[in-house]
Amino acid sequence: MRIGELSRRTGVSVPTIKYYVREGLLPSGELSSPNQASYGDRHERRLRLIRALLDIGGLSVAAIREVLAAVDDPDRSVHKVLGEAARRMTPRYAEGGDDASLASARDQVRQLIARRGWQVDACNPAATALSETLAALDRVGHGEFAEVLDDYADAADRVADADLAYVARKAGLDDLVEGVVIGTVLGDAMLASLRRLAQTHRSSTMYEG
Amino acid sequence: MRIGELSRRTGVSVPTIKYYVREGLLPSGELSSPNQASYGDRHERRLRLIRALLDIGGLSVAAIREVLAAVDDPDRSVHKVLGEAARRMTPRYAEGGDDASLASARDQVRQLIARRGWQVDACNPAATALSETLAALDRVGHGEFAEVLDDYADAADRVADADLAYVARKAGLDDLVEGVVIGTVLGDAMLASLRRLAQTHRSSTMYEG
Repeated sequence: MRIGELSRRTGVSVPTIKYYVREGLLPSGELSSPNQASYGDRHERRLRLIRALLDIGGLSVAAIREVLAAVDDPDRSVHKVLGEAARRMTPRYAEGGDDASLASARDQVRQLIARRGWQVDACNPAATALSETLAALDRVGHGEFAEVLDDYADAADRVADADLAYVARKAGLDDLVEGVVIGTVLGDAMLASLRRLAQTHRSSTMYEG
Repeated sequence: MRIGELSRRTGVSVPTIKYYVREGLLPSGELSSPNQASYGDRHERRLRLIRALLDIGGLSVAAIREVLAAVDDPDRSVHKVLGEAARRMTPRYAEGGDDASLASARDQVRQLIARRGWQVDACNPAATALSETLAALDRVGHGEFAEVLDDYADAADRVADADLAYVARKAGLDDLVEGVVIGTVLGDAMLASLRRLAQTHRSSTMYEG
């Protein structure tokens, strides 16, 4: 297809498509004549992935380039590619200092990971983010909120099962990574809203019923 | 206690405490002499609540004033007060238009609420936020991700149980609302990190094991 058709199909403007080609995010089309390039399904899939990383994942062009390099690296396993995408979408809680709260939070996280039997690296960015959140709780005098950790981890296991079952249906690596990006970011928003609804229901039962 | 002691105990500077008094967020101390005011536990608790709403909840001074008005209203039930605090901490996903995706997403949310037997208002802001997220999924061609909704709702129910058990231990309404603010905001961050860890574990099992 021509670039105009690619633009219509994906909702991405022609100048933007050309910009992605110049930036090396999207392979150039095949030249069918000296000044006409032809684009295929591969371009369309890649373009959707770029938009997902940009619009939903909130990634920079430089970060997108690295994720795409992982996707295109034949030596990289699916697990590594998914990890590369997920790593860039891990929100970090505003850091406090390297204090006693953080040291104890790191211990809590290490113990939790061991208790759950989760095969994750100790330097996983989500583990770091979790330690920082637990440290923040402790600093505002709510360290005991960490008692909910195992209930939360049960819930997270359930959610992750559903997430992986969703992405596993995707055929190619581009689609798989796109599914991870969409599911990660919009899934967080979905889960936060559902948590509010469930809390409202329970609060109504506890305090009004 | 004097204002200096209140400042030491809470980590809030004296000028900031005076600012909160001027803005009507914190009641003035009792005058023990013409130019000396005395502060009690009530002030300390309220100051901690203000900081939680501001630093963790990210609320504006105007929004904090309304939450505190709800806390101090003797005619407001605990459920209503918690609802007022929670309402202001519901993240909204960037809105698209009022299109077919949104109309169908609203139906999905109504059906989900009915299916779960959740006693929540249809105009609950979390229900609106959830509809917007589902509409966004549909617009990027991932409407089928909504199939995970019930698994996510199961997880949300489990998390909400743990949340409410935590806040129910709080004695006064100030502490209760503080617990809700802390638990809501930091709980979202905790859950997002745990979800990443659980996903990593599953991905490693599925694609490497």
